[in-house]
Amino acid sequence: MPSIKPPSGTRDFLPTEVRRRQRVMNVIRETYERHGFEPLETPAFERIETLTGKYGDEGDQLLFRILKRGDKLAEALAYANADALVDFGLRYDLTVPLARVVAAHRGQLPTPWKRYQMQPVWRADRPQRGRFREFWQCDVDMIGSSSVLAEAEVIAAVTEALGALSMDSFTVRVNDRRVLAGLMESAGVAPDRETAVLTAIDKLDKIGASGVTAELAAGGLADEAIARLAEWVLAPPAEASHAPQATLALLTRIFEGRSARGGEGVERLRALLGVLDAAPVPGRLTVDPSLARGLSYYTGPIFEIAVDGLSGSMGGGGRYDGLVGMFSGREIPAVGFSLGFERLLVLLEDRGWFADDGGALDVLVGLLDEDAIGACVGLARELRRAGLRVDLSTEAVKLGKQFKSAEERGIPYVALLGSREVVSGTVGLKNLRTGEQVTVERSKVAATLHALRAAERTAAG
Amino acid sequence: MPSIKPPSGTRDFLPTEVRRRQRVMNVIRETYERHGFEPLETPAFERIETLTGKYGDEGDQLLFRILKRGDKLAEALAYANADALVDFGLRYDLTVPLARVVAAHRGQLPTPWKRYQMQPVWRADRPQRGRFREFWQCDVDMIGSSSVLAEAEVIAAVTEALGALSMDSFTVRVNDRRVLAGLMESAGVAPDRETAVLTAIDKLDKIGASGVTAELAAGGLADEAIARLAEWVLAPPAEASHAPQATLALLTRIFEGRSARGGEGVERLRALLGVLDAAPVPGRLTVDPSLARGLSYYTGPIFEIAVDGLSGSMGGGGRYDGLVGMFSGREIPAVGFSLGFERLLVLLEDRGWFADDGGALDVLVGLLDEDAIGACVGLARELRRAGLRVDLSTEAVKLGKQFKSAEERGIPYVALLGSREVVSGTVGLKNLRTGEQVTVERSKVAATLHALRAAERTAAG
Repeated sequence: MPSIKPPSGTRDFLPTEVRRRQRVMNVIRETYERHGFEPLETPAFERIETLTGKYGDEGDQLLFRILKRGDKLAEALAYANADALVDFGLRYDLTVPLARVVAAHRGQLPTPWKRYQMQPVWRADRPQRGRFREFWQCDVDMIGSSSVLAEAEVIAAVTEALGALSMDSFTVRVNDRRVLAGLMESAGVAPDRETAVLTAIDKLDKIGASGVTAELAAGGLADEAIARLAEWVLAPPAEASHAPQATLALLTRIFEGRSARGGEGVERLRALLGVLDAAPVPGRLTVDPSLARGLSYYTGPIFEIAVDGLSGSMGGGGRYDGLVGMFSGREIPAVGFSLGFERLLVLLEDRGWFADDGGALDVLVGLLDEDAIGACVGLARELRRAGLRVDLSTEAVKLGKQFKSAEERGIPYVALLGSREVVSGTVGLKNLRTGEQVTVERSKVAATLHALRAAERTAAG
Repeated sequence: MPSIKPPSGTRDFLPTEVRRRQRVMNVIRETYERHGFEPLETPAFERIETLTGKYGDEGDQLLFRILKRGDKLAEALAYANADALVDFGLRYDLTVPLARVVAAHRGQLPTPWKRYQMQPVWRADRPQRGRFREFWQCDVDMIGSSSVLAEAEVIAAVTEALGALSMDSFTVRVNDRRVLAGLMESAGVAPDRETAVLTAIDKLDKIGASGVTAELAAGGLADEAIARLAEWVLAPPAEASHAPQATLALLTRIFEGRSARGGEGVERLRALLGVLDAAPVPGRLTVDPSLARGLSYYTGPIFEIAVDGLSGSMGGGGRYDGLVGMFSGREIPAVGFSLGFERLLVLLEDRGWFADDGGALDVLVGLLDEDAIGACVGLARELRRAGLRVDLSTEAVKLGKQFKSAEERGIPYVALLGSREVVSGTVGLKNLRTGEQVTVERSKVAATLHALRAAERTAAG
């Protein structure tokens, strides 16, 4: 007997889980669409050469690769060459497919183009708690605009989506890649050391300020440079970390006469904060000069959302003007944000956001006797056409058994229609929560159930 | 420069297409949920041994296989053994994953369990017009019930979904595998010839009655048997093909004293028609003794939906009591229907079902001058929170250019808010279809736009 579990790192989503995931995706989708972002979907796999070399060496290792078939496979096998065996790779993120689509459908897309995409991606990672090989990403990107309004629109869409999910205790941390570069420049870090220093700073959340300074010292960075970075980046004054304008003023003083690039970054952040001040978004906002967002492709403002009491981030993004153009052969400005869908779902479950699910079904049409089958099927059809979610017993087993099955499945009502009720033109309605049973005229069952369900929803809040 | 097209046989779905697909899926989802079917989602890939041997030799050839990684791959390569290279295979249909899920989550699922599943599947087929390597399936199945109500529920859900999509000119053809077996038995076909004869009959739609009889003759079937099959199966009387009860009466006469199995099939169809008569479903219903539904795993009633003027079917299904239990080690009755989502979408597009799309956006907030950026961002935020779908210009370019861009994207209104309007507390509203422009109080913009859009929807019908 083959194994019946889903492959390691993947999940079967049973009905309750699918409904929860869809409910969250619908909120995000509606919010993004209200913000003018349009949906895109791309194939599950891409040509392998579209993917390789885009995610670093580690990323290349984590690609799921699809085998060639037939003669082509036989040929590659004869040479025992692993690279030649592969045609396609599974989607690894939503950004590389976006860049390909922008190049492929250039004439059909408006400029700027705001797109969102919610699809699974696959990574051949070692599965562990909370980390999957198949997981969903929710990306929102604006392509073709250099305006600070592009950053503001992306931040507005994401924070409003979290707001619509009843989240409020979160912080949007913003920074600019040029601010980080300016700080390194001002601290006297040589240009060829910038990447190593950035790598160390990026670990601040994990290893703390002392860990970062130790790593910088081990790397041979001068004590003076370390001291400056410690002051400016690793331990900014407490008040500054909560007052964006104060942080910007501090940065301006640091960059004065020291770093033009740093100054550019501060100006951009000042403009962004100006827009966000004019129309505040949900959540708190801080300027955090230590925010690095990994070593990825960002070129300007970067942002990350931290939820109170939750380590790590709920997602992040920023401006990346060099990447989307990679398939188009010309630079195309872009800014985006990727929301951590799986983390978000866990958090919403913990917070009881799904408590008022209301169940999947409104009523079970019970089966009292075989002679009333036609009448029961007719009743089910009528209630369904009236918009109710209706199940129908398929066996005229003992009524207690039908009640029990409905209760176990969270169905609140059972409609009872046997030969006797057919004659009297009535239907029995059993409320499984209260145990009460009422007799309703046949023609009023749908209206009665709608009224009962609406009253319950009102009572639930 | 790598190729920028999606892999052969796959598609990028741009916004209009995604919205259309989601709209159709939502109608199907809502209908299936009203009928008590619950959503299931399974991983994109399964262990390769879960899939192989389930779809016949041809199916095995069409599986997309995912390469092992690291040491395991190196080891397999050393032996140049193609089978050992593979860990996983991409989902090929939704039935095998369902069977695995039923075994894996037995205790958590009700009996009977009604599930629907709408997910992509992948087949390494030769791509051609209208045939894809990545395409969506919409399956609805009822697991664990032998009742004829199970068949009736599945047929009701599918036909009501088509009805909800404004389709009415379609026919549900029903038959029973035992009827076909009974006809072969009654015609004197030897048991070991049944599969070959069934294969020939299955081609009736493609090669016609004369093609089938020729194939039967070439296969060495006796003239008398061919003559009987021609009369009973290949060319049923015209009136019988439209009157289900007449067809059943004819079949009863044929099976009398000739085939007990055929008689069982007729009895089941009679019961099914009884239920469907009591609560008629959308579409026409015919009993078609030539319907074979391929050589697949069906064991009882089978059905197929044919749309007037469209060759081929819009989907089909039936009872298959032997398949779902394959991972559970015991027989579990099941009946299901698979709707051809890609065909359905093409048909709905041809019929103009998407004509009243209403566009993706309600209004563009134009940008008149840089000084009003904050006010424009604030207006956009307010309109979005009021439920409108709003885009925001990111550059204060010439107004004519902003109008043109909005028109090209099908946005019906542009809201104009410059420094002058900020002072006067108003907003200009330009209707791009009529060219009219009105001045609206700042506090009434959302309500005005909602009223205008509602009036358009009413006018559109």
